[in-house]
Amino acid sequence: MQDPPDKNEVPGIIGIRRAHERICGFIRQTPVINEQALDEKLNCQVFFKCEHLQRTGAFKFRGASNAIALLRERKTKGDVATHSSGNHGAALALAASLDGRKAHVVMPENASPVKIEAVQRFGGQIHFCESTQAAREAGLARLVAAGHIPIPPYDHNDIINGQGTAALELFQQQPGLEIVIAPVGGGGLISGTALVASAEGVITVGAEPAGAADTAASLKQGKRVETWQPDTIADGLRALVGVRNFDIIQAHVEQVLTVSEEEIREAMRLFWQYFRMLIEPSSAVVLAAIAKNPDLFTGRKLGAIVSGANIDPADWIRLTSKIG
Amino acid sequence: MQDPPDKNEVPGIIGIRRAHERICGFIRQTPVINEQALDEKLNCQVFFKCEHLQRTGAFKFRGASNAIALLRERKTKGDVATHSSGNHGAALALAASLDGRKAHVVMPENASPVKIEAVQRFGGQIHFCESTQAAREAGLARLVAAGHIPIPPYDHNDIINGQGTAALELFQQQPGLEIVIAPVGGGGLISGTALVASAEGVITVGAEPAGAADTAASLKQGKRVETWQPDTIADGLRALVGVRNFDIIQAHVEQVLTVSEEEIREAMRLFWQYFRMLIEPSSAVVLAAIAKNPDLFTGRKLGAIVSGANIDPADWIRLTSKIG
Repeated sequence: MQDPPDKNEVPGIIGIRRAHERICGFIRQTPVINEQALDEKLNCQVFFKCEHLQRTGAFKFRGASNAIALLRERKTKGDVATHSSGNHGAALALAASLDGRKAHVVMPENASPVKIEAVQRFGGQIHFCESTQAAREAGLARLVAAGHIPIPPYDHNDIINGQGTAALELFQQQPGLEIVIAPVGGGGLISGTALVASAEGVITVGAEPAGAADTAASLKQGKRVETWQPDTIADGLRALVGVRNFDIIQAHVEQVLTVSEEEIREAMRLFWQYFRMLIEPSSAVVLAAIAKNPDLFTGRKLGAIVSGANIDPADWIRLTSKIG
Repeated sequence: MQDPPDKNEVPGIIGIRRAHERICGFIRQTPVINEQALDEKLNCQVFFKCEHLQRTGAFKFRGASNAIALLRERKTKGDVATHSSGNHGAALALAASLDGRKAHVVMPENASPVKIEAVQRFGGQIHFCESTQAAREAGLARLVAAGHIPIPPYDHNDIINGQGTAALELFQQQPGLEIVIAPVGGGGLISGTALVASAEGVITVGAEPAGAADTAASLKQGKRVETWQPDTIADGLRALVGVRNFDIIQAHVEQVLTVSEEEIREAMRLFWQYFRMLIEPSSAVVLAAIAKNPDLFTGRKLGAIVSGANIDPADWIRLTSKIG
């Protein structure tokens, strides 16, 4: 039986499968890589799903592509808008541009030049604002008032279903995984991942910097923490977990592990030593959590989602320098 | 009919197919990636075969794995030896170690710490020597006299067939390519690539730094140039083209394009801007040659082999800095 078109797809395995069909002509099916020499060091097998090799350098392009494709399916015309200091902005810029739309991205004046350049390269239009949450929201509100369609970065059904497609591919590419691990920021990636893993009977574990561990704290108190002053080099994970993201995490994520800043730096170095790729601190939390918890992972077969590579090489050096 | 085992496999499509069967359990099937936004800039479609994501960070692991697997098939026992200031050393170290052998690698004292570390990480034993060709060859001769089996980096049938497996995968992964382009150093990769492309009816083009353009010069004079003082940042392409490699290039490579140092630097920047990956100067010559020759490539569908990612991020920054 053909599923009827659903104007408000709920987050879940059906929506994620539909999302994958919808976006598979636009995204890259990113590779899954493993290195035996690293496995021997970690005493477990780790299969890395390389979303840092996704278009625009991050998994964010999946969610953005799904949201844009649904606008097209629903015949909703118009430009889109978001606020972002990071990867969602560039992802939305490219996804919109491939659909003949413009993406308007509110960015703080102090955003990194690399991220500003990426939004522009992929066709987005930047609206600078002061570096406060209030200014960012006000900037977005003006764009929405002007008729543009808001596409939020994580607390949104279409985004969650889009991000879940990475795990969908991972389980097809690498059968037999026992645990899948993803970073936790706003929660778009981990919630999509957990919905797929749950349908596969696989355990999901999250990884978070100790300096932005609002999700671990929320799980502990059984209620979403509403304020947290983030302090971490993992800039992609500083956001508070989203409302619907937290609901999914509570239902489907086994636990969220936390790692220190130095453990993140060491994982960035380790990934480079074994794979010759630079990854963002936000990506490295997963490898850091694996290295830190041999009691949980020894002898297991793990899937690890590597989320992004959008880091200026000079920043990578600064962050991984033993002196710095 | 089963092919009889061949103790001295000649370089060619049959040997390359056999090599692939032999090594496919050890190598990564590296991804092929494309970015429409970059295609629009270049006015052609470029499908990058990501051998810089191969184990040990370079295509060299293919040839080394094939050579080692053939030692095993031929029941030849013993450790292996080579001299290398670069990627062949680490590749041979890992391939040997996976077969329970030791690789002895003669390296110049001034080799980069990154390359020394890689050989050691993957299980190789380093023998330092002075930084001259004579000292390197003398070092290797001592190891061979001690009973170790020499595995040269490019001028060797098993190596050429191994390197050809990258193109074999490329044509399977991406049908419809019209031209394939690979860098030219000692000639292992380009000769294997050309043998596969020729069997597919596809044109092969080489790319070389102007400062190490011995192959272009050799083709021009119809005879292998035997001395050349290389002067290029593309350290992996400084070697003179090998004897049997040049024979294959003469027979199967349409032309070898040369690029300037600044064109190489610009291609390194460009690859990072669109793909967020750092590649070696030796890899970037291919993209540099594509960007430089719109007359040859506009409107065409190209396969480009990206050969390696073994560059210290600090060196990448130094080489791509607009000031430097």
